[in-house]
Amino acid sequence: MTEKIPIGAKTFLYPMPTVLVGADVEGEPNYLTVAYCGIIHAVPPMISIALGKPHYTNIGIKQNMSFSVNIPSAEMVEVTDYCGIVSGRRIDKNGLFTSFYGRTKTAPMIEECPLNLECTVRQILDFDGTNEIFIGEIVEAYSRDEYLTNNLPDIEKINPICFSMHDNRYFSLGSYIGKAWQIGRDYKKP
Amino acid sequence: MTEKIPIGAKTFLYPMPTVLVGADVEGEPNYLTVAYCGIIHAVPPMISIALGKPHYTNIGIKQNMSFSVNIPSAEMVEVTDYCGIVSGRRIDKNGLFTSFYGRTKTAPMIEECPLNLECTVRQILDFDGTNEIFIGEIVEAYSRDEYLTNNLPDIEKINPICFSMHDNRYFSLGSYIGKAWQIGRDYKKP
Repeated sequence: MTEKIPIGAKTFLYPMPTVLVGADVEGEPNYLTVAYCGIIHAVPPMISIALGKPHYTNIGIKQNMSFSVNIPSAEMVEVTDYCGIVSGRRIDKNGLFTSFYGRTKTAPMIEECPLNLECTVRQILDFDGTNEIFIGEIVEAYSRDEYLTNNLPDIEKINPICFSMHDNRYFSLGSYIGKAWQIGRDYKKP
Repeated sequence: MTEKIPIGAKTFLYPMPTVLVGADVEGEPNYLTVAYCGIIHAVPPMISIALGKPHYTNIGIKQNMSFSVNIPSAEMVEVTDYCGIVSGRRIDKNGLFTSFYGRTKTAPMIEECPLNLECTVRQILDFDGTNEIFIGEIVEAYSRDEYLTNNLPDIEKINPICFSMHDNRYFSLGSYIGKAWQIGRDYKKP
């Protein structure tokens, strides 16, 4: 093996998800493309999203203390990317999708996305840097029969977008390589 | 389109990363497989990991207030899965890998993983539920020339593992589908 080299303190995590975060801003649905998103708690189910501080969406999340995480399919990569380029301050992104609401009544969700997570804000973290971190509790998830297998979301049917940060590339999901808590059960070091 | 249906409040995020979290526990390196991991801050670079409270690794993170996030390649799926099945309380997982240290001197990293993030703990969150959430600042990242393109990690060379939660399946990365902040630039709603 060649030697390990320090490559700088940067946000190198692979793969990252690609989601559309939804919030009502001044009463109108707005959607922002986000890769800083991760599950942080099992029971209750909680998720974190981190948004650059100047974003329009942040205003709406704080107004309603709710937001949505919508998972687009790879077929939606162009509109997904577009939502990360244009600001809701200039463009009505609501018109790009059909929005629907769930239990919170204030977190708009995208009908066209295979999977939607409806969240209420549990905490907002601010480390005096570039981002605001919204910690949300997932109060309900929504999908359609065509994306489920055994009543669970099927990642192959959802066909999500994988993101590579810093070189800014989108990828599709690849092939099944093994069952978790099983494929390694009998592992022995060679 | 068929109708949206509520599918329950669960941690449905796709794809999730698959990482090995490292910490010295009682002075010995230990590694745990984790999918609850996400970037939460750009500058300074910060990452969150969430571990079930009973895990052995948590003890070491708190002892040293440091941890590592190691990204295994798909070729390492068996040993990666194994590290999520067996506890460091029973099995010496250090022996599975060659460990190295960086600036913190206390966050062990895995030589065999294409990419390593060395982190110091900035905050620990506890929502009185199943998990402890460790928010880390990435103080350095490490890789090898063979995994870089233009001095940045190349996700295709790293070949990371994508995780599908709840049905517990590992997937490889698929193919390139577009450039971010570019492919959607001229998007028009059909």
